[in-house]
Amino acid sequence: MQFGSDNQTGASTQVLEMLTTANSDFTHGYGDDHWCRQAADDLKQLFSCDLEVFFVATGTAANSLALSCLAQPWETILCHHQAHIIQDESTAPEFFTGGARLTAISNQAGKLQTEHLKRYFRQLGEEPPHTPRTSALSITQANESGLVYTPDEIKALCTFAHNRKMHVHMDGARFANAVAALECSPADLTWKAGIDVLSLGATKCGAIAAEAVLFFNRDLAGSFIHRRKRSGHLVSKGRFFGAQFVGWLKDKHWLELAAHANRQAKNLEERLALFPSISLIWPREANELFVTMPERLVDFLHDSGAEFYQWPSHSLPRGIELKNNTSFVRLVNSFATTDEHIDRFCELIHTFESESRSD
Amino acid sequence: MQFGSDNQTGASTQVLEMLTTANSDFTHGYGDDHWCRQAADDLKQLFSCDLEVFFVATGTAANSLALSCLAQPWETILCHHQAHIIQDESTAPEFFTGGARLTAISNQAGKLQTEHLKRYFRQLGEEPPHTPRTSALSITQANESGLVYTPDEIKALCTFAHNRKMHVHMDGARFANAVAALECSPADLTWKAGIDVLSLGATKCGAIAAEAVLFFNRDLAGSFIHRRKRSGHLVSKGRFFGAQFVGWLKDKHWLELAAHANRQAKNLEERLALFPSISLIWPREANELFVTMPERLVDFLHDSGAEFYQWPSHSLPRGIELKNNTSFVRLVNSFATTDEHIDRFCELIHTFESESRSD
Amino acid sequence: MQFGSDNQTGASTQVLEMLTTANSDFTHGYGDDHWCRQAADDLKQLFSCDLEVFFVATGTAANSLALSCLAQPWETILCHHQAHIIQDESTAPEFFTGGARLTAISNQAGKLQTEHLKRYFRQLGEEPPHTPRTSALSITQANESGLVYTPDEIKALCTFAHNRKMHVHMDGARFANAVAALECSPADLTWKAGIDVLSLGATKCGAIAAEAVLFFNRDLAGSFIHRRKRSGHLVSKGRFFGAQFVGWLKDKHWLELAAHANRQAKNLEERLALFPSISLIWPREANELFVTMPERLVDFLHDSGAEFYQWPSHSLPRGIELKNNTSFVRLVNSFATTDEHIDRFCELIHTFESESRSD
Amino acid sequence: MQFGSDNQTGASTQVLEMLTTANSDFTHGYGDDHWCRQAADDLKQLFSCDLEVFFVATGTAANSLALSCLAQPWETILCHHQAHIIQDESTAPEFFTGGARLTAISNQAGKLQTEHLKRYFRQLGEEPPHTPRTSALSITQANESGLVYTPDEIKALCTFAHNRKMHVHMDGARFANAVAALECSPADLTWKAGIDVLSLGATKCGAIAAEAVLFFNRDLAGSFIHRRKRSGHLVSKGRFFGAQFVGWLKDKHWLELAAHANRQAKNLEERLALFPSISLIWPREANELFVTMPERLVDFLHDSGAEFYQWPSHSLPRGIELKNNTSFVRLVNSFATTDEHIDRFCELIHTFESESRSD
Repeated sequence: MQFGSDNQTGASTQVLEMLTTANSDFTHGYGDDHWCRQAADDLKQLFSCDLEVFFVATGTAANSLALSCLAQPWETILCHHQAHIIQDESTAPEFFTGGARLTAISNQAGKLQTEHLKRYFRQLGEEPPHTPRTSALSITQANESGLVYTPDEIKALCTFAHNRKMHVHMDGARFANAVAALECSPADLTWKAGIDVLSLGATKCGAIAAEAVLFFNRDLAGSFIHRRKRSGHLVSKGRFFGAQFVGWLKDKHWLELAAHANRQAKNLEERLALFPSISLIWPREANELFVTMPERLVDFLHDSGAEFYQWPSHSLPRGIELKNNTSFVRLVNSFATTDEHIDRFCELIHTFESESRSD
Repeated sequence: MQFGSDNQTGASTQVLEMLTTANSDFTHGYGDDHWCRQAADDLKQLFSCDLEVFFVATGTAANSLALSCLAQPWETILCHHQAHIIQDESTAPEFFTGGARLTAISNQAGKLQTEHLKRYFRQLGEEPPHTPRTSALSITQANESGLVYTPDEIKALCTFAHNRKMHVHMDGARFANAVAALECSPADLTWKAGIDVLSLGATKCGAIAAEAVLFFNRDLAGSFIHRRKRSGHLVSKGRFFGAQFVGWLKDKHWLELAAHANRQAKNLEERLALFPSISLIWPREANELFVTMPERLVDFLHDSGAEFYQWPSHSLPRGIELKNNTSFVRLVNSFATTDEHIDRFCELIHTFESESRSD
Repeated sequence: MQFGSDNQTGASTQVLEMLTTANSDFTHGYGDDHWCRQAADDLKQLFSCDLEVFFVATGTAANSLALSCLAQPWETILCHHQAHIIQDESTAPEFFTGGARLTAISNQAGKLQTEHLKRYFRQLGEEPPHTPRTSALSITQANESGLVYTPDEIKALCTFAHNRKMHVHMDGARFANAVAALECSPADLTWKAGIDVLSLGATKCGAIAAEAVLFFNRDLAGSFIHRRKRSGHLVSKGRFFGAQFVGWLKDKHWLELAAHANRQAKNLEERLALFPSISLIWPREANELFVTMPERLVDFLHDSGAEFYQWPSHSLPRGIELKNNTSFVRLVNSFATTDEHIDRFCELIHTFESESRSD
Repeated sequence: MQFGSDNQTGASTQVLEMLTTANSDFTHGYGDDHWCRQAADDLKQLFSCDLEVFFVATGTAANSLALSCLAQPWETILCHHQAHIIQDESTAPEFFTGGARLTAISNQAGKLQTEHLKRYFRQLGEEPPHTPRTSALSITQANESGLVYTPDEIKALCTFAHNRKMHVHMDGARFANAVAALECSPADLTWKAGIDVLSLGATKCGAIAAEAVLFFNRDLAGSFIHRRKRSGHLVSKGRFFGAQFVGWLKDKHWLELAAHANRQAKNLEERLALFPSISLIWPREANELFVTMPERLVDFLHDSGAEFYQWPSHSLPRGIELKNNTSFVRLVNSFATTDEHIDRFCELIHTFESESRSD
């Protein structure tokens, strides 16, 4: 019953087999091998465009390296107040950019909207060099509230940003889940909507440790190889990271893994709807659910072996306050979430409710 | 009619004369001279305690160097949303700290209060190393809304911070104005209330370019000489910066300069109260006024040679919105503000109002 | 015939199998799993001591993170002029330390000796804060000339360094080869000789991507988890990196892999000794050979499919100049170097020599 | 008898008077004033060209800010092994560049020559992104051995550098002394010879604290205002720094001050030549002498109140070793060095020698 994070799984069999296949024989190091070339070709085909692609082992590296190509040290990057880059990656963005600043503008909304950008610029007394220039926007897909941005929403944000001479980064740690949810093409969700750079995560959805940074706007990629090297993210046996992507992308495997995770989230949502003590806080759109439940239920579930995290209260919708003795909780489904996991989880809740009623 | 900033003045005669006196003869370089030693002694006497003191030429350097002694690169520093360190010093804090983060917690209040700290920690899902540790609090005295913190308010903030193992920095660019306003001792406003480090600014109140960083908590000062040197802030002819402080402090000169600025602010406040189109937004407590006035009046005053800045709307009190055709404006009085400046400024407003009525 | 680098191989079967075993089931992320705990325990047993250990994916990350715990940004780290950290890792040490400096002191010697340290300090006009304080020494084992430091040599260097209040780091990217060459214990080569921190590399000797940073001096490790996280080197599915070490260490597998590489280097050395046009430049002590050969032979070998790198001339011994039309060349043997590789390589040389004579 | 450094003097009367003149009235802050504009115009006229100019308070800031415009964090800057930027400015260059590297290439020569550059590139195994790209050259005028580069020497270095796509910085802390020594135009020594950026120091030659960074290659200056602000080097009352330059440049005052310092150095050289125990090590070309003398004489002079520094032995010419009981010593003459200083200094030496002979 692991609903803690999609990084609590191992890798999918297909990814692991491709990695094993890649083990034979000698190749050049540092990504100069046919596995990395194959992965790059597969990604170009998937996104129906030419692009620059770089592989790294972690999402934090992917995001921070991407952002460092979009912001000078005296500039600022706008993001959602619950964005992974501002909430969960220590001060990595500052480290990689040489001290640029993240500015959260979403004001407890579930999704970033152009309205947030407009208000930000309306209130800003920008006066360089005293104030940092606003150089980039970063959005997350699927996002920090478990929601997905539609192509039109992305296009609106990118258009606004480009008009202000900002570039746009997409944190796609759960990009596969968003594609599966929206049933549109990867291109529609990215460069066709104006995204300049995408951090595409395979790790949370079936790989061991494999993230790709894709520059649709290739002019921004010039310094990447230097930044990756000097941050220690150029792996010597690069083939193993290329091979994970080859295995992940082959025969739409990635999309099936993501669709499974989303389906299980839907299943869990439907099951939880039957329990009156549990409330869905954000609409379930991809593989994550955000719900409130009694604190005592949280304890009971944890004690019974279920894994999931309580979530900070300022990621609740604006105006919503937690009731007393209630917790805000995130439940993540993955490619490895089985029906049994969900059954057992719901049985536990049922047991708890029965006991509560009988008290 | 310069109400733009207290840095639009020159230096006071007494400061300039002391600098001239310091010019004669040879001394050692880099602050190893009797002027710097005298200034340090004078400051120890003024604050009635032993302390470590370092001189630099700018307020941004003083603040950023001080903060860099309080936060590791993976930590965060709390501050007011309008603090100079977050609004007006580019990304200097990030540069000097090696990428630590500023977090604004004041939510449009005029002053930081323990309530803001409490809410911050209540909402925080701190989970190192994923989230930055909260290591310091920085407050401004007199502050970003022209208000002064009382000794009790400072003590409450420092006590809360120290209980959370945070250190407290005070940005004292207008510390003299606060002391003059509160008529209490420098010690009461700083170390006796729990302040660990003070950036004490003389520049805005009569010096050419002279700021002192005072460590009441001397344990924090160990790396300062290295940080100052490698950021290019160790001036070779240090005597001239020590001498400014000697001149500034002598015979309570600094306090008289500040008291004059505050008095003129009070005079201006009283005069402006007579004009119905002008509203005081924050109570006038030191040398700055924050008012709203018609946009056309702003234009008229600027066209007539008055200098002052419009201020960003998110420094208005929470819940207050600017009416249409109205501007939010800051008016700063300095040691050099004369009665004539105020008279002419008010006459202009009178002229504008008369003409408006006759329209 | 890959003699280019030991990173041109894949992983050993045993390592790969352990990684596959680790794939089953769920675990916590970020290294909080039984594989990482097992690997840590195995390392403690191997080194016969308690220690702090952290896993990362690349040698550059291991080295730079380790060094960042040994030097403040205003300090300098001494190293060999051909050290990987100064020659092959871009400016990663500067990035991770926040701008500390590397100072090469070896003056074209093959190994660092206390004599180099003595001369450095004799010539140094150290005057903080103007000059950087010397805070650490980094040595490589097996080293940049293919040589190994004996326990006594390490002890002499560490004793000198500790007496100057410096800490000592060992870059052990080829530590296994050194242990195999010296047939002494890992403890003898490290903490018993005074090493404070070791970057222990498994990647070059049989792993996919697995490096461990071992703090024998545990007081230095306090900031590591923060530094690793904010540099993007905390992998989410940490188990896969722990598992590589478990597989690598099991049943002295690591030592067998290294011994094989060393043996093949010895074989190759003996075979090359028969060719008069090839000269061994540094004694062959581990798995690398440094030789000179005619430029035309280099071209012939490359054209025939052999892989190896030409090496910069300032890594030649002091006083040795390359003769005209001669190249300096590095030949690396790995756990995967077979007798056939060596046979074919030598046959090619034989062919070349025969043809040359008949010219 | 202060021969320690030219920063042990105060300011010249003319500079101080101009600063006093600048004190009257209000001006805009942050360099937006007529004093800074006047200073910029004066510098354009002096150098007979258009240029971008920025004022700061210290030489370290001037040098480091200039270098940060010439090197990305993954690049390296070549310099003399005794350059102030590598020997006396802590790790400021690393701090300002975000971790670029300085590489000393002069090998104990007195001046940098194209031969040093050639050897550097011949030995370099440049392989980006593994090795830092070589992006800039920095030379000092007058230099670290008290020597001056002729226009032809500068041109040769710049031509070589530009051919390798490197930019060239000149550290002109003693530029005035070089101009006075060579009796050529400032333009001949800078942009006409290929210099891209000059740190022009007034501090050592008559100012209080005033350095100008001059970009002859204006394309390189784009980020300067941001870099200066976020490093705390944008002074609020900028007029006082502009005014120092106005006073310094007026009526060739700067050149007279420098010529006086040079003349006194020549006088001192001639007087010292009479003492057999004192040997001139580098030719005296500007205002500094580098000599060897008996250690006991050093002690005697210091005890008698003379000020000067012993110099590190690796700044001796290659092949020269200090004899036992001998010290290497630097003697700096300034605009304030009087005949009496020299007389008394030489009398002391005479006394010492007399007493020594009679021992």
